[in-house]
Amino acid sequence: MTAKAFQDCFAEEFAHCFGCGRLNEDGLKIKSYWEGDESVCRYAPQSYYTGGFPGFVYGGFIASLIDCHSSATASATKLREQSIALGDKPLSRFVTASLKVDFLRPTPMDKVLELRSRATEIKTRKVIVVTTVLADSEICAKGEAVMVEIAGSGWQ
Amino acid sequence: MTAKAFQDCFAEEFAHCFGCGRLNEDGLKIKSYWEGDESVCRYAPQSYYTGGFPGFVYGGFIASLIDCHSSATASATKLREQSIALGDKPLSRFVTASLKVDFLRPTPMDKVLELRSRATEIKTRKVIVVTTVLADSEICAKGEAVMVEIAGSGWQ
Repeated sequence: MTAKAFQDCFAEEFAHCFGCGRLNEDGLKIKSYWEGDESVCRYAPQSYYTGGFPGFVYGGFIASLIDCHSSATASATKLREQSIALGDKPLSRFVTASLKVDFLRPTPMDKVLELRSRATEIKTRKVIVVTTVLADSEICAKGEAVMVEIAGSGWQ
Repeated sequence: MTAKAFQDCFAEEFAHCFGCGRLNEDGLKIKSYWEGDESVCRYAPQSYYTGGFPGFVYGGFIASLIDCHSSATASATKLREQSIALGDKPLSRFVTASLKVDFLRPTPMDKVLELRSRATEIKTRKVIVVTTVLADSEICAKGEAVMVEIAGSGWQ
């Protein structure tokens, strides 16, 4: 059985995001999965996502990955809290209230980046998600995203 | 006389950034200019930079604009501090140590976004840049970026 990606469980209306929308043909189409209590996304940046510093990944791109993966993690976390299996109901959609990224070292190009996240606070409509971004098992960046659920966007 | 964009004053080595590199053919090629004490960047997002919420701009894209415009603002600020005119020397290059974005309201698609920034702290190798992002004169997001100069990247 193949695990279901969080992003494949959004209603069609919410599936056009540049970062994660399965229906955005020009987008990144990132995919996030549960691995125990952590959500994980792996992505190899295209060669043109270089930063200002030669040989390294563009910070805005790293922020984008964190943003989208955090949003999907918030949605999947809320579903899991209600003991509903992924895929049984459309996920609700979260928007970003704030995003903080600390860039701890330059992130090398030509690597598969690994984002590992968990929810640290879960309220009725707010979820805080913290993320580490790794390349070759080294932490390159950390993120914290405050996500807010769009009322009426899920199955409820 | 046409004003010079900050990004046109980076040495070739530092001109490949996805967000602002004039030599990155696949990139956004954003341009930043002085308007008095503020640096300003205007950009109309391509139609595929939609967010998770239909009709609005992708948060990761807004973070990317803030990141690049802040980096260039830090570089231009340092040059100005030394009373050197833009274009007289290559700008030094700053990397992002941390980036915080507060999304205050959904940012509508099909608008020219305006980023207005100023440096709030200037140290030997560190510059903090705060930014407001406007659409139709309404503030949609605010950013704060801590930028660090790459040693030896400028004219000095």
